[in-house]
Amino acid sequence: MNHVKCGRCVRCGREYPAVPNLTNCECGGILDIIYDYDRIRTVLTRETLKNRTERSMWRYRELLPVEPETPAPPLRVGWSPLYEADRLAKELGIAKLWVKDDGQNPTASLKDRASAMAVAKAQEAGAHVIACSSTGNAASSLAGNAAAAGLQTFIFVPSRAPKGKVAQLMTFGATVISVQGSYEDTFELSKQAIDRWGWYNRNAAINPYLSEGKKTVAYEIAEQLDWQMPDFIAISVGDGCTIAGLWKGLKDLHAVGLIDRLPRLISAQAEGCCPINRAIAENRPWEPMEENTLADSIAVGVPRNADKALMAIRESNGLVVNVSDAEIMAAQKLLGRTCGVFGEPAGVTGTAGVKKLCEQGVLPKDATVVSVVTGNGLKDVANAIKACGEPISIPSDMDLLLRAFDEHGINADVK
Amino acid sequence: MNHVKCGRCVRCGREYPAVPNLTNCECGGILDIIYDYDRIRTVLTRETLKNRTERSMWRYRELLPVEPETPAPPLRVGWSPLYEADRLAKELGIAKLWVKDDGQNPTASLKDRASAMAVAKAQEAGAHVIACSSTGNAASSLAGNAAAAGLQTFIFVPSRAPKGKVAQLMTFGATVISVQGSYEDTFELSKQAIDRWGWYNRNAAINPYLSEGKKTVAYEIAEQLDWQMPDFIAISVGDGCTIAGLWKGLKDLHAVGLIDRLPRLISAQAEGCCPINRAIAENRPWEPMEENTLADSIAVGVPRNADKALMAIRESNGLVVNVSDAEIMAAQKLLGRTCGVFGEPAGVTGTAGVKKLCEQGVLPKDATVVSVVTGNGLKDVANAIKACGEPISIPSDMDLLLRAFDEHGINADVK
Repeated sequence: MNHVKCGRCVRCGREYPAVPNLTNCECGGILDIIYDYDRIRTVLTRETLKNRTERSMWRYRELLPVEPETPAPPLRVGWSPLYEADRLAKELGIAKLWVKDDGQNPTASLKDRASAMAVAKAQEAGAHVIACSSTGNAASSLAGNAAAAGLQTFIFVPSRAPKGKVAQLMTFGATVISVQGSYEDTFELSKQAIDRWGWYNRNAAINPYLSEGKKTVAYEIAEQLDWQMPDFIAISVGDGCTIAGLWKGLKDLHAVGLIDRLPRLISAQAEGCCPINRAIAENRPWEPMEENTLADSIAVGVPRNADKALMAIRESNGLVVNVSDAEIMAAQKLLGRTCGVFGEPAGVTGTAGVKKLCEQGVLPKDATVVSVVTGNGLKDVANAIKACGEPISIPSDMDLLLRAFDEHGINADVK
Repeated sequence: MNHVKCGRCVRCGREYPAVPNLTNCECGGILDIIYDYDRIRTVLTRETLKNRTERSMWRYRELLPVEPETPAPPLRVGWSPLYEADRLAKELGIAKLWVKDDGQNPTASLKDRASAMAVAKAQEAGAHVIACSSTGNAASSLAGNAAAAGLQTFIFVPSRAPKGKVAQLMTFGATVISVQGSYEDTFELSKQAIDRWGWYNRNAAINPYLSEGKKTVAYEIAEQLDWQMPDFIAISVGDGCTIAGLWKGLKDLHAVGLIDRLPRLISAQAEGCCPINRAIAENRPWEPMEENTLADSIAVGVPRNADKALMAIRESNGLVVNVSDAEIMAAQKLLGRTCGVFGEPAGVTGTAGVKKLCEQGVLPKDATVVSVVTGNGLKDVANAIKACGEPISIPSDMDLLLRAFDEHGINADVK
């Protein structure tokens, strides 16, 4: 990889050759992949991109840590739609809002970007098996992307994992090990197994290549906006890998001259679980928190990538905002009603944060904002059922329909 | 619409001007939209398409029944991925198989193509409200696509409709009327309400424009295969609108000279509900059937578009195949394991049909086949749970893991 210099520890600065199975630094710090931007800027321009037909995350190969001959994994990951949300912007009272719907990915979440990268790197490493421990989107995206590439997966889930998610994994042919115990117990057994059998490791806070997959969401936003960056990009934050990837992507673009200003990040967490935002707000090291939120994909009390996330928010002069579960579910309906986008609770937390910052007067009225929806609402229909209320229920009778519309204040005679 | 001649009844041949709110013929027959192919072939060529950047169903505007100035509705519908399924082809023993994953649409089914068309035509008609009666993908796709365009929806569902589906509709801001009674009762009340308030009607067997949206799946398959058509295209069949739309699209392409041969259709239905296939197999008019299948999206005992579906299958010299629920669920796992594609039961019925025709020796070994997956498995996780079995369940202990792998015959030491 001529365009990649090394992996560099974000804590101690130690550098490692960028081999495919890179993991954490000896000091325990996570690595960052370092590129040769001077070389890349000579080959990757707005013009070269304009003429490219590839519509997936692999459109940006010059900025991805893979060998030129490594095949793109089969599933079509990335190039999710960016919607102009004019009606929603108006309701919120800001100048311009776009919604990046990353629930439109093969397994319905942004995590597909990381898992596709894991598959590519596993193939470079000559591995035939990839493993991870997770109950959520990381697991399903790994299982799906690996299956499409003909790789086996071993996935460790805590026994509390929802049956629907386990079923999805098993449909993709994953070997699923349900561990009777906590998430920590699950992680520990997966670690031992990975060490023993030498499986390729897909854990976002250990494998530094994964956020290099996630960063492609930033490239797409920039190109879809014709390189005119918004003032802010809002995203939900759990273990920190996604916001770190988003920031890495933005910095890449700036370094190679594709954009000329960097947006500020908005880090949205759940009130019931916001260790990263608390660290920023109180300007002190992060500390573990309870995991009290229904937004399961960001219910991470011990964020595994806090280092990179905190750096990203600080470097971007970012904002932090915590939202209640009620505000999250209200944002789900707001996005559905105004944009036709159905996001999972964690997926819409960024939008809930934007709404709150508007209400608090923190975001100026002339602000331009992109809100990233990180996962599809079909992943968690149970919470949508709780939030949406009851439909009108009547027998098949026009008089009863008229009366029901009247009682509910519904105007059927819209012209 | 200079490129559209009229709507013509498929039963009696009577012609109607192509106004936006066209419904059935006076004789009760459904209309077909008739194009001026001579005009279209002068403007739509392989070359013009090659230079087009639009990646959605609106890429093919010259063949769509909309005015030039009608805006494309906001959600990105269509241009779903077509995957080369080499491993699956090998398992089935045929030369070549591609999987068209139409679960990768905004509301996760092929129905988005019809609903986007409904939104475009409703806007041409100056309507602000669209209505339909449905429990399934038609309803959710209408609610989502209309919400994105700022149109209101009134959706009538029978009271047996699953809560998850109702929740999705309500998240999109639809006014949902749950009718205490059968589907017929529901349809009847919706019809009265539509007549009374003049809402735009999104019912695929009444509104002839909807299958004109669905036909875009054929255009994409052809272009994604660089206009080299396969021997067969397999798809699941419920009320008949989708296979009719697929065939219309293929005939369009042939008529304007974009393809030079027509594939044969494979109509796949559930054994427990196969009125269309039975009519073909026994060469007699269709008759109603019970609705005994877990593939709810194609559990249609009284198909509302049998006329067009039967014509499509016969004209294409098509094959019919009925599969059991067990075969459907096996196909779901097969697609997941070999392709990383998670389809709902009705979505994978076409693939189940291909598998059965291979096993029966009906499909020749040198056959090339496209199988359309019409909806995402996340729409119906309950059935996947039933089908997938149980994961390995153990405490966090390496010795127990070794024993479990041994008992299950799992080789963890894959090189």
